[in-house]
Amino acid sequence: MKTLATLEPLTTRLLEIQRINSAASVLSWDQETYMPAGGGEARAEQIAVLQGLAHQKLVSPDVQHLLAQWVDPATGQAADQSGETWDEPSRSLLREVWRDFSRAKKLPSDFVVKLSRECSLAQQVWAEAKEHNTFVKFLPNLRTVLQLKREEAEYLGYHDSPYNALLDVYEPGATIAGLQPVFTALKTRLVPLLKRITQSRVHIDDGMLRHSYDHARQLEFGRLVLIAMGYDFERGRLDLSAHPFTTSFHPTDVRVTTRVHEHELQSCLFSCIHEGGHGLYDQGLDQRYFGTPLCDSVSLGIHESQSRLWENCVGRSRSFWRFFYPILQQTFHHQLRDVEIEQFYAAINRVKPSLIRVEADELTYNLHIMLRFEIEQALVENKTQPDDLPAIWNQKMEDYLGIVPASDAEGVLQDVHWSFGAFGYFPTYTLGNLYSVQFFEQAKLEIPHLEDEIAAGRLLLLRRWLEQKIHRWGRMFTPAHLAQRVTGSTLNPELFLNYVEKKYGELYQL
Amino acid sequence: MKTLATLEPLTTRLLEIQRINSAASVLSWDQETYMPAGGGEARAEQIAVLQGLAHQKLVSPDVQHLLAQWVDPATGQAADQSGETWDEPSRSLLREVWRDFSRAKKLPSDFVVKLSRECSLAQQVWAEAKEHNTFVKFLPNLRTVLQLKREEAEYLGYHDSPYNALLDVYEPGATIAGLQPVFTALKTRLVPLLKRITQSRVHIDDGMLRHSYDHARQLEFGRLVLIAMGYDFERGRLDLSAHPFTTSFHPTDVRVTTRVHEHELQSCLFSCIHEGGHGLYDQGLDQRYFGTPLCDSVSLGIHESQSRLWENCVGRSRSFWRFFYPILQQTFHHQLRDVEIEQFYAAINRVKPSLIRVEADELTYNLHIMLRFEIEQALVENKTQPDDLPAIWNQKMEDYLGIVPASDAEGVLQDVHWSFGAFGYFPTYTLGNLYSVQFFEQAKLEIPHLEDEIAAGRLLLLRRWLEQKIHRWGRMFTPAHLAQRVTGSTLNPELFLNYVEKKYGELYQL
Repeated sequence: MKTLATLEPLTTRLLEIQRINSAASVLSWDQETYMPAGGGEARAEQIAVLQGLAHQKLVSPDVQHLLAQWVDPATGQAADQSGETWDEPSRSLLREVWRDFSRAKKLPSDFVVKLSRECSLAQQVWAEAKEHNTFVKFLPNLRTVLQLKREEAEYLGYHDSPYNALLDVYEPGATIAGLQPVFTALKTRLVPLLKRITQSRVHIDDGMLRHSYDHARQLEFGRLVLIAMGYDFERGRLDLSAHPFTTSFHPTDVRVTTRVHEHELQSCLFSCIHEGGHGLYDQGLDQRYFGTPLCDSVSLGIHESQSRLWENCVGRSRSFWRFFYPILQQTFHHQLRDVEIEQFYAAINRVKPSLIRVEADELTYNLHIMLRFEIEQALVENKTQPDDLPAIWNQKMEDYLGIVPASDAEGVLQDVHWSFGAFGYFPTYTLGNLYSVQFFEQAKLEIPHLEDEIAAGRLLLLRRWLEQKIHRWGRMFTPAHLAQRVTGSTLNPELFLNYVEKKYGELYQL
Repeated sequence: MKTLATLEPLTTRLLEIQRINSAASVLSWDQETYMPAGGGEARAEQIAVLQGLAHQKLVSPDVQHLLAQWVDPATGQAADQSGETWDEPSRSLLREVWRDFSRAKKLPSDFVVKLSRECSLAQQVWAEAKEHNTFVKFLPNLRTVLQLKREEAEYLGYHDSPYNALLDVYEPGATIAGLQPVFTALKTRLVPLLKRITQSRVHIDDGMLRHSYDHARQLEFGRLVLIAMGYDFERGRLDLSAHPFTTSFHPTDVRVTTRVHEHELQSCLFSCIHEGGHGLYDQGLDQRYFGTPLCDSVSLGIHESQSRLWENCVGRSRSFWRFFYPILQQTFHHQLRDVEIEQFYAAINRVKPSLIRVEADELTYNLHIMLRFEIEQALVENKTQPDDLPAIWNQKMEDYLGIVPASDAEGVLQDVHWSFGAFGYFPTYTLGNLYSVQFFEQAKLEIPHLEDEIAAGRLLLLRRWLEQKIHRWGRMFTPAHLAQRVTGSTLNPELFLNYVEKKYGELYQL
C-alpha cells in the first residue's frame, strides 16, 4: 500500500506554496490591525504578487506532472497504473489537491493577480464608504469586483447558476438547489417562532449590557475566557480590529481579533468566544501535515460551526455563566452587582429584530443570512445591479425583519464580504449555525455530564472532543462525510430548530 | 538620450522582486513586535521562502538578458551598442542593479534560503540565550551562521580579507584598509579626550534620569518628538520591541520601534529620536522610483548618519531642549520640576564608560564599535573561534573602556547582529557618527539660524534640507559621491573629532 512518503515530491512543493500563502495572510492580518492608512496601496500590490506566485506555483507543469501520475483526471480520485492502492490519508490528500489544482488551473495567473489587487483596494474603499455612509463611493469598486467574480465563475464552469461555482469555493459540494430547502425549512419554523416571541408577555431588559464598561477590563475578561477554552496564547494573539476575525499562518501562529465598545458589553465578549472557536480549530489542525489539505479546514461552514458552537451553545448557555458570571460580576462590580444571573442570561439571549448581522440573536441571525443569500445570488446571476442594492436591501429588511436601516452604513454597507469578492460566503454562516447544534448535541451524548463540566469552568473536555472528532482531520473527509462520521448523519436542520424552539420557548414562556 | 522609459521591462521585474522583499520585511517586523513565541520556526521558513524567491527572480535569465543589453559586464557601467547615451538616473539605476545582480548571481539559491532560515532561527535562540545569560546555548547557532557567512564571502570573492566581501554589502566601497585609518584617528584623539574627561573636576549627576517615569507618558513624549521631526504617522507607526529598529515596506509604510524602561528616561526618548531619523530617510525616498535602487537607501553608514544626526547633533543639543525641556518638565512635573535645563543637558551628555553599546555616550560609543570591528574581522578570517568570544570580549572591554561585564548578557550577547549573520555591519555605526556631524555642520552653513530654529521647535526646516540633499536621491550616487555633493568633501573624521572636543571640552571644563 502506498503512503504519504510516496507523495513527498508533491508535498514539498505544496509546502512552499503554503508558506507563500501564509506570508500573504500575515500581510492581510497586518492590514486589518496595525498598517498605517497610507500603506494601503502598496500593501494591495504586495499581497497580489504573493497570491499570483502561489497560484503560478500550484498550476506549474511540475505539479501537474506529479498529479497526472497519481490522479485519474476524469474522476479526480487517486489512481495508479501499477494497481497498488493508496492509504486513506494519501487518497484524501490527492483528492483535495486535485480539487485545488483543477480549480486553480482554470484561472489565468494574471486574472488571479488582478482579482487580488482589486479586492484589496475595494476593501479599503468600502471601509471609507462605510465610515462616511456613502454607498456611491464604493459603487465603482463593487462593480469591478462583481464583474471579476462573474468572470471567475465563467472560468470555473458551473451547473445551473454561476453562483454555484462561487459557493463551492467556500463550501465544497454546496449548491443553490441544496441550500434552498434548508433556508425554506428555517423560514417556515423561524418566522412563526419569531412572531410568537415578539408577541410574548415576557419582556427582557438588557439595559445592563449598555452601561459603561472599561475597555481594558473587557479585553482582560475576553482573554480569560479564551484561556479557559484552551486557546493557546503561546501560539496565538488577541488584537483589535474594526471587524473581529481569525487568521492562521501555521498551527503554531493562529491569531484572533476582537473589538471593544464601551457601551456594548456583548460585543467584545462574544466576539472573543466566537473567534476563539475559530482559533481552536486552526490550532487543532495536525501540523505534521502542514502545507497539505490534511492541515487545512474542511469548509467555512464547518469552521463557522466551531465558532458558533462556542459562542452560542456554550457562551449563551446557563451552564457557562454559572461559572463565569461571578467572575464577570467581580470584574464589573459596579455595573452588575444588582443583576441576577437569570437576568443576565435572559439579556444575552434577548431576541429582537435588529439591523446588524453580527449583533443579531441566534434566531434572527439566519434571516440576515437569507437576505444576503438571495441578493448575492441575483447579483452574480446578473439579475440585480449593484446600483439598486440599497433599495433592495432595505425592502428585504422590511420583509424579513420588519425594520429598515436609516443609513447604508447600517444597511448594505455593514459587511466587508462583498468588497473582497466573497460572494457565496454568507450561506456558510447559516450552515455553521446548523452544524454547531448538531455537533454540540453529539458532544452532550458522548461527554459524560458535559453541562456540569461547563458549569464548573472545565471547558477543555469539550475542546479535546472537538479536536479529536473534527479539528485534527483537516480535509481528510468532505464536510458531509465528516458530519456523518461525527454525528451519524449529514446536515440536519431539525436539531437546530428543536434547540431554538426549546430554548426560546422556555425563555419567552411560549 | 535614453531615459528610464527604456528600462521599463527591467523595472517591472524589479518592482515584483521588491514587493516580495517588502513582504519578507513585514514578516520580520511582525516577528520582532507581535509574533507569538510558538510561531518562530514557521516564520523562519516563510521568510526563507520569500527571500529565496526574490533571489531566484533577481538572478533569472530574464533579468540577466535585459542587463546584458545595457551594461558592460566588465565595468558594470551603463553601455549601449547603439552609442546613444543614458541620462543620469538611468546610468545610476543600471550601475546599482548590476551591483545587486552580480552579487546575487554568485550565490546559489539554495544557499540563500539556507542562510535566511539559519539566521532567523539563530536570532530566536540568541534572544533566549541573552535572556538566560547562557552563551553556550547560542554557540552552535553562532558557529553555523559564521560558517555560512564565510562561505558567502568565498562565493562573493574578495581582496585581502573575506571580511571585505561582507563589509561591502552594508557599505559599498568600504574595506578594512579604508576603515583602519579612520579608527586609528578616532582612537588617537578619543582615548586621551576620554582620559581628560574622567579626570575632570566636573562631576555630572544624571540620577534624575533614573527616577520612575510612567510608561505611557514616555511613549507619548516620544511620539510628540517624532511628530515635531516630521515623521508622518499616516505612513508610519511606533511600536515596542526588545531592540528598537526601523523597517520600511514602501515610502508609505515606514515603521519605527522603541522600548520603554521605567527607570531609564533616555532609553525611550533617544531611541525614538534615533529611529525617527532612520524613519525620515525611508519616508523621504522618492516613491516614483519604488522597486529600483533609486528608491533605496545608499548605505547603512549614510542611513545611520541620519539617525545619529537627529539623536546627537539635534537631540543632545542645548537648542533642542530649549524648546522641548519645558514640555518634558510638564509631562514629568514631579520628577523634573527642580531640575534646571543645564543640569538636564549635562545629564544626557554625561560621558562614562559603560557596558552597553546602545546606551553609550557619543564618545565611548565608537570604542564599542572598534572592539566589535576587530572581533568580527578575526572571526570571519578564522583567526578567532566562536568558543573564545566571551573571554576576548571581556579582555577588549577592559583594554578600551576599563570595565568588564559581569555577565555575557551584558557582554558578548548584548547585540543581535551576529545572530542574524550581520558581520560587517558594526563599522557603519561609526561611519554614521562621522557623517552625521559632517552633514550637520553643512546644514548649519546652509540653513540660516538653524540652531535658533531648532530652539523654537521648528525642526521641519532641517528635515526638508536632509530630504532634498540626501533622502530623495536614493542610490543615485555612491556614499562617497553623495558626501562630496552635499558637503564638498568625502568622509572627514576631523569634523566629528572637532565637534566632540569642543562640546565635551566645554561641558567638562577641560
